[in-house]
Amino acid sequence: MKKILIVNGPNLNFLGRREPEIYGSDTLCDIIEYTKRECASLNVEISAFQSNHEGEIIDMLYRAYDESYDGIVINAGAYSHYSIAIRDAISSIRIPCVEVHLSNIHAREEFRHNSVISAVCKGMICGFGKQVYPLGVRVLCEI
Amino acid sequence: MKKILIVNGPNLNFLGRREPEIYGSDTLCDIIEYTKRECASLNVEISAFQSNHEGEIIDMLYRAYDESYDGIVINAGAYSHYSIAIRDAISSIRIPCVEVHLSNIHAREEFRHNSVISAVCKGMICGFGKQVYPLGVRVLCEI
Amino acid sequence: MKKILIVNGPNLNFLGRREPEIYGSDTLCDIIEYTKRECASLNVEISAFQSNHEGEIIDMLYRAYDESYDGIVINAGAYSHYSIAIRDAISSIRIPCVEVHLSNIHAREEFRHNSVISAVCKGMICGFGKQVYPLGVRVLCEI
Amino acid sequence: MKKILIVNGPNLNFLGRREPEIYGSDTLCDIIEYTKRECASLNVEISAFQSNHEGEIIDMLYRAYDESYDGIVINAGAYSHYSIAIRDAISSIRIPCVEVHLSNIHAREEFRHNSVISAVCKGMICGFGKQVYPLGVRVLCEI
Amino acid sequence: MKKILIVNGPNLNFLGRREPEIYGSDTLCDIIEYTKRECASLNVEISAFQSNHEGEIIDMLYRAYDESYDGIVINAGAYSHYSIAIRDAISSIRIPCVEVHLSNIHAREEFRHNSVISAVCKGMICGFGKQVYPLGVRVLCEI
Amino acid sequence: MKKILIVNGPNLNFLGRREPEIYGSDTLCDIIEYTKRECASLNVEISAFQSNHEGEIIDMLYRAYDESYDGIVINAGAYSHYSIAIRDAISSIRIPCVEVHLSNIHAREEFRHNSVISAVCKGMICGFGKQVYPLGVRVLCEI
Amino acid sequence: MKKILIVNGPNLNFLGRREPEIYGSDTLCDIIEYTKRECASLNVEISAFQSNHEGEIIDMLYRAYDESYDGIVINAGAYSHYSIAIRDAISSIRIPCVEVHLSNIHAREEFRHNSVISAVCKGMICGFGKQVYPLGVRVLCEI
Amino acid sequence: MKKILIVNGPNLNFLGRREPEIYGSDTLCDIIEYTKRECASLNVEISAFQSNHEGEIIDMLYRAYDESYDGIVINAGAYSHYSIAIRDAISSIRIPCVEVHLSNIHAREEFRHNSVISAVCKGMICGFGKQVYPLGVRVLCEI
Amino acid sequence: MKKILIVNGPNLNFLGRREPEIYGSDTLCDIIEYTKRECASLNVEISAFQSNHEGEIIDMLYRAYDESYDGIVINAGAYSHYSIAIRDAISSIRIPCVEVHLSNIHAREEFRHNSVISAVCKGMICGFGKQVYPLGVRVLCEI
Amino acid sequence: MKKILIVNGPNLNFLGRREPEIYGSDTLCDIIEYTKRECASLNVEISAFQSNHEGEIIDMLYRAYDESYDGIVINAGAYSHYSIAIRDAISSIRIPCVEVHLSNIHAREEFRHNSVISAVCKGMICGFGKQVYPLGVRVLCEI
Amino acid sequence: MKKILIVNGPNLNFLGRREPEIYGSDTLCDIIEYTKRECASLNVEISAFQSNHEGEIIDMLYRAYDESYDGIVINAGAYSHYSIAIRDAISSIRIPCVEVHLSNIHAREEFRHNSVISAVCKGMICGFGKQVYPLGVRVLCEI
Amino acid sequence: MKKILIVNGPNLNFLGRREPEIYGSDTLCDIIEYTKRECASLNVEISAFQSNHEGEIIDMLYRAYDESYDGIVINAGAYSHYSIAIRDAISSIRIPCVEVHLSNIHAREEFRHNSVISAVCKGMICGFGKQVYPLGVRVLCEI
Repeated sequence: MKKILIVNGPNLNFLGRREPEIYGSDTLCDIIEYTKRECASLNVEISAFQSNHEGEIIDMLYRAYDESYDGIVINAGAYSHYSIAIRDAISSIRIPCVEVHLSNIHAREEFRHNSVISAVCKGMICGFGKQVYPLGVRVLCEI
Repeated sequence: MKKILIVNGPNLNFLGRREPEIYGSDTLCDIIEYTKRECASLNVEISAFQSNHEGEIIDMLYRAYDESYDGIVINAGAYSHYSIAIRDAISSIRIPCVEVHLSNIHAREEFRHNSVISAVCKGMICGFGKQVYPLGVRVLCEI
Repeated sequence: MKKILIVNGPNLNFLGRREPEIYGSDTLCDIIEYTKRECASLNVEISAFQSNHEGEIIDMLYRAYDESYDGIVINAGAYSHYSIAIRDAISSIRIPCVEVHLSNIHAREEFRHNSVISAVCKGMICGFGKQVYPLGVRVLCEI
Repeated sequence: MKKILIVNGPNLNFLGRREPEIYGSDTLCDIIEYTKRECASLNVEISAFQSNHEGEIIDMLYRAYDESYDGIVINAGAYSHYSIAIRDAISSIRIPCVEVHLSNIHAREEFRHNSVISAVCKGMICGFGKQVYPLGVRVLCEI
Repeated sequence: MKKILIVNGPNLNFLGRREPEIYGSDTLCDIIEYTKRECASLNVEISAFQSNHEGEIIDMLYRAYDESYDGIVINAGAYSHYSIAIRDAISSIRIPCVEVHLSNIHAREEFRHNSVISAVCKGMICGFGKQVYPLGVRVLCEI
Repeated sequence: MKKILIVNGPNLNFLGRREPEIYGSDTLCDIIEYTKRECASLNVEISAFQSNHEGEIIDMLYRAYDESYDGIVINAGAYSHYSIAIRDAISSIRIPCVEVHLSNIHAREEFRHNSVISAVCKGMICGFGKQVYPLGVRVLCEI
Repeated sequence: MKKILIVNGPNLNFLGRREPEIYGSDTLCDIIEYTKRECASLNVEISAFQSNHEGEIIDMLYRAYDESYDGIVINAGAYSHYSIAIRDAISSIRIPCVEVHLSNIHAREEFRHNSVISAVCKGMICGFGKQVYPLGVRVLCEI
Repeated sequence: MKKILIVNGPNLNFLGRREPEIYGSDTLCDIIEYTKRECASLNVEISAFQSNHEGEIIDMLYRAYDESYDGIVINAGAYSHYSIAIRDAISSIRIPCVEVHLSNIHAREEFRHNSVISAVCKGMICGFGKQVYPLGVRVLCEI
Repeated sequence: MKKILIVNGPNLNFLGRREPEIYGSDTLCDIIEYTKRECASLNVEISAFQSNHEGEIIDMLYRAYDESYDGIVINAGAYSHYSIAIRDAISSIRIPCVEVHLSNIHAREEFRHNSVISAVCKGMICGFGKQVYPLGVRVLCEI
Repeated sequence: MKKILIVNGPNLNFLGRREPEIYGSDTLCDIIEYTKRECASLNVEISAFQSNHEGEIIDMLYRAYDESYDGIVINAGAYSHYSIAIRDAISSIRIPCVEVHLSNIHAREEFRHNSVISAVCKGMICGFGKQVYPLGVRVLCEI
Repeated sequence: MKKILIVNGPNLNFLGRREPEIYGSDTLCDIIEYTKRECASLNVEISAFQSNHEGEIIDMLYRAYDESYDGIVINAGAYSHYSIAIRDAISSIRIPCVEVHLSNIHAREEFRHNSVISAVCKGMICGFGKQVYPLGVRVLCEI
Repeated sequence: MKKILIVNGPNLNFLGRREPEIYGSDTLCDIIEYTKRECASLNVEISAFQSNHEGEIIDMLYRAYDESYDGIVINAGAYSHYSIAIRDAISSIRIPCVEVHLSNIHAREEFRHNSVISAVCKGMICGFGKQVYPLGVRVLCEI
């Protein structure tokens, strides 16, 4: 059985209350539950984490290393666009990471088109709302 | 039952013979078959198309409109990086499109980081090898 | 009597079906007919051509040379923004060309503001919907 | 009967004396007369204005609003390339404007390729010498 | 008692008639009256000036110097974005200036984000509609 | 009675000890007291918060939402220039925010001229030292 | 005897009162007198003009053409950096122009390093204070 | 005996008729014949291909692979400057390619200075007119 | 006896486990011990601190001020490239800082070439692995 | 009596033989003689130096320092555009320097518009052919 | 019989010892000998020159002029990327020059893609190792 | 015993006379003596070299190779910012190099922030005045 960690970055705590026309009305809790249900048939144990703090996300990534996670689905939110520190953490721990975004970042403001963590992740899934989480888990299961 | 078209752009005809360390050793045919198998349980009919010609891809997109496809998975290959003409075609036909790439385009040469068709697609999946095709179909089925 | 060719590039085959708030509801056929009616009093013979293929447009430009056209009205669509190959063809044949666009390209997305063929055309008319075609013909008749 | 105003910006007072290989040998007066003759059959009353002063052009645009003009043909000359103030005036008065240039600005120096007023005009006509004026009036009559 | 001059640049003469969803429905006169009322309790004498002419604004700034004004509230409108000449005049006269804008220039088009006069003003207040004028006066009174 | 929160970002804890020629000799405490005195006549209750941690500032913004604050005055310090995460938090909570800076950021180093949070705030006040705080509160009271 | 016109742009009316450590304490009048004295031995008649208005400078350049001046020394001040309209006027009248600046514009702020009128002037003299005027006249006499 | 393919891109069909001061008066046929004559003493079999179609050039490159060519001399014309699709095809087939241009692309317009296919070719020869073809063949024979 | 603080930023907690070909196999603890040994003969007391949190690093810098440290050796890791907040803290406390990096940041990815804290540090030492720490201490002792 | 050194950089040894339409037909010797004649009435002793070697020019500048020259007229030719080393030498010796160029560098290729030595020279004179040398000497005499 | 000079720039003295996987193991002497052998059948006299000094290369180009060379093959090494001084020398002497590089400069670091001397050479040959020298000589013989 | 060479570039001959507030009052000789004293306890033989000539520095680097130096401390002065030729020499000889600068180049003018030789040196030490030399030697001794 694989251990998968879902890491969520800043402002995702507010999901379901914020701009529902972009992100849908589900809370982050709802989405994690949805993801677990969708992945019920896969041999996988899913944990989730959220923080608005760049440093806590980095700390969590090293904890994932210590706890021998097999894969990470990461939605780093706004930190995706500038946190080289998170990039380095992902690169250090060498656990396969899938980058996900609820919205299509390429169809939003110019400054959201680039993600500094993409190059150290296995790949990216974006634009499909809450679906991106179970898709990310599914990918990690098939490695 | 949904009708899904998989559109493949330039050089994908050479898959399986080229740089297998990046793209795997499957031919495009193998990948389409794999995709059909993976999606067997979904209520979906899958067709596939490949061309090295920008114009033929555009023509095909309009044919997809005429033939009432419900969704398109498109791997526009190198045209992703400059074909505003394909972008306009996707935008015209208003059929939901999912952009896919076998490799993680954000981890390759600088000029591959940007896709001009991303902003008119529903979302992007990249970096997971042949898995990106069935994932793309799956997303379209759940809309 | 002057022979004028109207060359239409990618996606213009879809006119009348696509984003009518920008381009109007006329098909390309309607527009060509409209242009012929508007230019009935001018001593001019009008032919029209459309292709989604960059190469076919270039081929057509050389055919226009072989068939001694006196002027060309060209709406190169999205190719206007990157086809240096079409630019070179226009520049080679030395037939006076008028660049037209249905919409005001300067009022749309940033990447549509620049046209690589402008510098080798006699001039540009854009933003007036189907009117741009008869205006283009009229200009060529008065040279 | 429509009231059309032709606004001419800096250095156009010198037309006919300056670089005739680019602009022709007609004075601005000649061109206005030519425009009136060309538009004699249209149900239109044409007035003309020229100033080298950015502020006077802005003042004139507001006067056009007060005097209920139906359309404006504007050749803002060099101010086209940097006068955001004129752009704002055009945008404020909400009278349909057609931007014209005698020469093809896209075929001249780099700094002339961009016009800051284009995005708030209905469209642009450039490169056909004095013809651009009656073409501009004609467009405004058919709105 | 302090003497404060309020300088208004291009297109502000049209306030109240133009894009009220951005600027409100007050005319410039209304706003000056409102400012005087709001500042009635401050020991201050307020004069106002408006011109669409860059040169007249510069002339006025030197007149403010000759007439010993104690402070200037300046809304240079579109000139804010390119008039180095106005910048130099502000810098020459060494009277404390407060830059104001009715709208939040940072939330509008890219070319409005930068003001060439900011660096020679004491500070900037923008985005609060007509409130910016009395706020500007208030700041100058407390220096 | 309105509830207003004043949020202060990194290094503002050091106010009064640091570069007094730029920021004045008041500590942040002094400035909050000054602000409360200046706003005594307004029907407003003022709270203040300071942190050097990007994540804590984001957490606080969500707490402001939960505690139904009516407005926020935010001096995000250096985070103004790169924290898209704080920008997204401000944008999520939809409480009117006024951006303030003690110094005129446009007159300092190039990298301080741009603020990524400006576009989601109601407006900006900068350059007037401690005055910017009561001015910010005043603006929020008049909405 | 040659007729030389000295054209002075915005803010030069304030010379002698402004930043004397950069420009010296002479007024523009003093400098013109100094220039006449310095050029007394040359067979030349010198006139001078100053305006803060871009349009008046352009008008003056055309008047110089009508009045058959043999050469122009121009210090366009801040307009040097953006007035393409003045550039076009200089280019139209085809009277030899020498561009002068009191200070060394290459040693000041970045945005002062570029002059849009340089390319249409015969040459540039800058950095030598009031000396640049008689040097400019001297050059024009020797053509 | 080595099999060499000469691939010619857009507008080269028009050679000999177009801008002879740049390209000489030989047609493409003449040049191929010239190349064969020049290479008569080398143990080499030369075939040639021309197309204005990006897609056909790509198709031809894969045909060259299927037909076991030993080397390719490619003049991709305008496609050199933007066809990442042709670049990828060259890179896929792994046949040694020599990039040639009749004119010195570094001495022409800025946008012709860069070739996107250079980095995947063995080297480049440009600027020597028709000589570049036999030189290209010669290089391939000596590998 | 001087008090020196060694501040370590994000991901340095993972030293010795991560990419040893770049950073060596020592842990941060090992390196601090090594530094103390190397500096045994210098009259200096060395403390060390590490955090993945930008805010904690800033807090620590102010604590260093409160505790009267004489110098700081700082390896801010990835924060070096974007943390203007840390830069401002260093600049505030006015304790001499030496910036160190284990690897030669100029020989790695483009985005690592620039450090925003360099300009407020006394100098930089990079590229010599763990040696950079005792070298940094040594420099601070000789001030 | 002042001692003035004229320093000439690369390719100026070839003057009189090269592109006379730009530089005139005088050799450098002729120009130095012309300069001495023109400055005969000034109380000045003129020496001249030319080298194609960046290092020799730097060595010469230090020799000028050792030999107590009062001023330097420098035409650094192409080195003007990139030799920061010459810039630093000029800046070190603190002898007043006047930068001269025979042609108007602002009217030539883009890469000649910028001079890295301008900011450390007293001023620049360019575009007046050999006249620039005596003008440069004259300026130095009047300091 | 034609006289051809081969000019070699910095670091080429070290050929054969340095990075043989890029440049081959031949010394510059070997390559010159190889070139002479390869060109034995051409009616040509070949001389060679190497220097690490920019100034000596320029001096040599003028000597080539004085000694009436018919053509120059130049490998300016790293100077190709910034020596405008060498560019000007090539342009002055008007002897046909062929630019050569052993490696394909377009396939190496970004800063090696551009050569400032290309535009004044007849053409470029690069990427074929020592073959580029006899190819360069051959081209010059056929002019 | 290790043989270390200290290479000094342009303008360092003038040390001690120039801008002592930046570089201190020691001459280069003094600094070399200081370095030898500081390194007396290390088993190392130190030689020094200075030249204002780019070519001589390159020649010296090859001589260092021929004379089997074990390490090089290089302060290339202004050449650090543009001499790709020196970079290539350092890269060719493969002797460990340490780049040093007396001042903190990151805290000076923008154009001094980048060094083109950094990427081929082992590391950089800058900003500590004459201390950088013995530190550089020390590093080389411990390799």
